[in-house]
Amino acid sequence: MRLDEVANCAPITLQHIDGGANGSLTVAEYGGALPFEFRRVYYMTGVTAPGAVRGRHAHKTLEQALFCLNGSVRLDVDDGMHKASLVLDKPNEGVYLGPLLWHELRDFSPGCVVLVFAAAEHDESDYLRDYDGFLAYVKASP
Amino acid sequence: MRLDEVANCAPITLQHIDGGANGSLTVAEYGGALPFEFRRVYYMTGVTAPGAVRGRHAHKTLEQALFCLNGSVRLDVDDGMHKASLVLDKPNEGVYLGPLLWHELRDFSPGCVVLVFAAAEHDESDYLRDYDGFLAYVKASP
Repeated sequence: MRLDEVANCAPITLQHIDGGANGSLTVAEYGGALPFEFRRVYYMTGVTAPGAVRGRHAHKTLEQALFCLNGSVRLDVDDGMHKASLVLDKPNEGVYLGPLLWHELRDFSPGCVVLVFAAAEHDESDYLRDYDGFLAYVKASP
Repeated sequence: MRLDEVANCAPITLQHIDGGANGSLTVAEYGGALPFEFRRVYYMTGVTAPGAVRGRHAHKTLEQALFCLNGSVRLDVDDGMHKASLVLDKPNEGVYLGPLLWHELRDFSPGCVVLVFAAAEHDESDYLRDYDGFLAYVKASP
């Protein structure tokens, strides 16, 4: 992962209990590895369209953490100045996505499962869904 | 699902936004479909041993909700009087697991992902890991 140049973005590793062929457990607990307490959890499944892109927005304030639980997916992040792109393919190695971070998900493998922890309930007014609008909002931010 | 005879156990359906080949979103939010607020989320992945069984315990007080996000898995539940067994294979159709419910997971398909929401942090003293001890505990409960 080369996220160090991108603002509001960092790798996160969750507790992982490896049971070999009996499978592994990955755990996210309040007060644990996530830098916020989660009030919403959502997951993406069943992406089969070859050119499918999910995300493609930023948030004004929302903090999230994103993990790929099965298969693999490519995550592109962009803080308005710097960009990074990485493949997620380990259930316990994800990415913290802070505010003002344009993000896109693509190259979903068959059976890919993307899990997201969010620090707040859904709030449509927190979304920036237009890229130029996002850039203008970042520029205007202190 | 034929869970109606088993105590402390019920089907749960989460909000599901179907995007066709672009995949679907399943959402669990505080104050939403889950009958408790989650303070821990964990997931099982990479179960490849043919006869693997996970779970195989009950809790004295913990409430949980279990979902299969990819592939399929068989869940056996047992309240000490009645048993049920069902296959989970839809990302938004899971099971509420209340206290005093022996549960086992088996027949993990390749790529199976099991996600669990738990109402409390891990507490080893809340576990009943011996089946006869579980039956005795249930009998002694009011």
